[in-house]
Amino acid sequence: MTVNVLFAARKAAWESYEAPLRAALKAAGVKARLSVDLPAEEVDYIVYAPNSDLQDFAPFTRAKAVLNLWAGVEGIVKNPTLTQPLARMVDEEGLTQGMVEWVTGHVLRHHLGMDAHIVNPDHDWIEQAPPLARDRVVTILGLGTLGSACAEMLVRLGFQVRGWSRSGRKVENVACFRGQDGLEAALGGADIVVLLLPDTPATENVMSAHALSLIKRGGVIINPGRGPLIDDAALLSALDSGQVGHATLDVFRIEPLPRDHPYWAHPRVTVTPHIASETRTDSAARVIAENIRRGEAGEPFLHLVDRAAGY
Amino acid sequence: MTVNVLFAARKAAWESYEAPLRAALKAAGVKARLSVDLPAEEVDYIVYAPNSDLQDFAPFTRAKAVLNLWAGVEGIVKNPTLTQPLARMVDEEGLTQGMVEWVTGHVLRHHLGMDAHIVNPDHDWIEQAPPLARDRVVTILGLGTLGSACAEMLVRLGFQVRGWSRSGRKVENVACFRGQDGLEAALGGADIVVLLLPDTPATENVMSAHALSLIKRGGVIINPGRGPLIDDAALLSALDSGQVGHATLDVFRIEPLPRDHPYWAHPRVTVTPHIASETRTDSAARVIAENIRRGEAGEPFLHLVDRAAGY
Repeated sequence: MTVNVLFAARKAAWESYEAPLRAALKAAGVKARLSVDLPAEEVDYIVYAPNSDLQDFAPFTRAKAVLNLWAGVEGIVKNPTLTQPLARMVDEEGLTQGMVEWVTGHVLRHHLGMDAHIVNPDHDWIEQAPPLARDRVVTILGLGTLGSACAEMLVRLGFQVRGWSRSGRKVENVACFRGQDGLEAALGGADIVVLLLPDTPATENVMSAHALSLIKRGGVIINPGRGPLIDDAALLSALDSGQVGHATLDVFRIEPLPRDHPYWAHPRVTVTPHIASETRTDSAARVIAENIRRGEAGEPFLHLVDRAAGY
Repeated sequence: MTVNVLFAARKAAWESYEAPLRAALKAAGVKARLSVDLPAEEVDYIVYAPNSDLQDFAPFTRAKAVLNLWAGVEGIVKNPTLTQPLARMVDEEGLTQGMVEWVTGHVLRHHLGMDAHIVNPDHDWIEQAPPLARDRVVTILGLGTLGSACAEMLVRLGFQVRGWSRSGRKVENVACFRGQDGLEAALGGADIVVLLLPDTPATENVMSAHALSLIKRGGVIINPGRGPLIDDAALLSALDSGQVGHATLDVFRIEPLPRDHPYWAHPRVTVTPHIASETRTDSAARVIAENIRRGEAGEPFLHLVDRAAGY
């Protein structure tokens, strides 16, 4: 039987995804009619990006699932017309791998003090090796798929890794914390903090002035997670006072980061343009195809969103 | 019983080593009187740096060993007054770990294109993620302790790793090459080349104009090995032509790198001041303490120098 799959995202996404999706569906043994234009009442699955024009899910009476192309679901999870199961993208292969590379690279950059060598106009030769990774505490807020994978790589490199999560998830060789007391313990004296929490009302401004005051003086904040995790005014103030030595930020409340935002000009802020991790079309297409295969086989969907929790 | 340990090195070394040595001796269960000033005839062990004022070992009639703080012993091995056993420093833990961190960090830096974000005066927001590590070839010349350890970490991060060594050593999941033909195959089309060969007549200028012409156009050279491995004029020329996109160099024929050397001013060269790897006081202190523990327990010393061979 042929399943009808509606691709509801912007045109550029269709151009990137059409061929990988067709290949992945075929490889998964799913006979599909894949299109950007299908009658709503005939649609079995919706492959979806939250910036799509499609915002009313009510007409899709037959749809078995909405399969998000993005890891983040804050742009759809509160949509009151959505009654179908919602799966988010967990592109372990592409997204997780990219995040591990970006996080490991920037943690090592700050650990090794690379910036002082990359920009060294006075040609200073100061023969002082950095401490070893075992002498640095890296705290990761968020131990989901991305946070856990980053934690494991940083452990392999020898860092003292701490993790904090809502659910109290455990990762081997990582000191794991949960709850408000746990947050303070996880941040206390940390050299480097990596933010990989989802964007929910409970995580907004988790890096508050108080939280920033707990890390080691001169420590580093790395945010490849979500913009609202940081109280921006508090971070700028902590950077100015020297409590935070540097911030490397990949995500912002408004993107692209407005040209007059103080982060751009701050000497102790590095802005990266939301590139820490992106879904790779080939591996993401395989995740979508696998979920359609599961739906047709009556197996449980992968990566279903808990709509009450918001992720 | 208390053992008397004389620390014979410069003042700065004492300041760095005193606390780690006391901690390491305690952890090894050795009760020691550690001092920079002890009557010669009471000294049981001499912790030694060849640039110390102590050059006459004859008065140390009771000393069971001279424990060198440096890997190099050329400054002491020919001293005719030295009749005590001499051990050199082999800090596997600190040296190898430091090199893995530095090499992994700089490989990721170039892989991720960090420099364009660290220095971005026009505040450009170009949302283009880098390729994944699996799409990059990293070639390591030299597969000794340091090269193998770096290769293994880069494999874990997902890079396509090639290795080349004189002996044809094999490392798991690394495409290993040897010989002149093997060198050309190892370098051909490489994105990033890491130099970790020893400095011998056979390795001098291994990165010749011809070798540099083999890598991918715009590729990166990283040298934490030895200065003479690179034909400096050829590298500067390849940087100017764009054949080499960037060079990150930690070692040089003359150190500190002279202030008028063209590497300092070249926009596509990063100079780091011979810090990729060094003996770490804490792990070195553990090596010293272990040797004192062995001496007191009647066990053979580690890392004894063959004074006829000179190392």
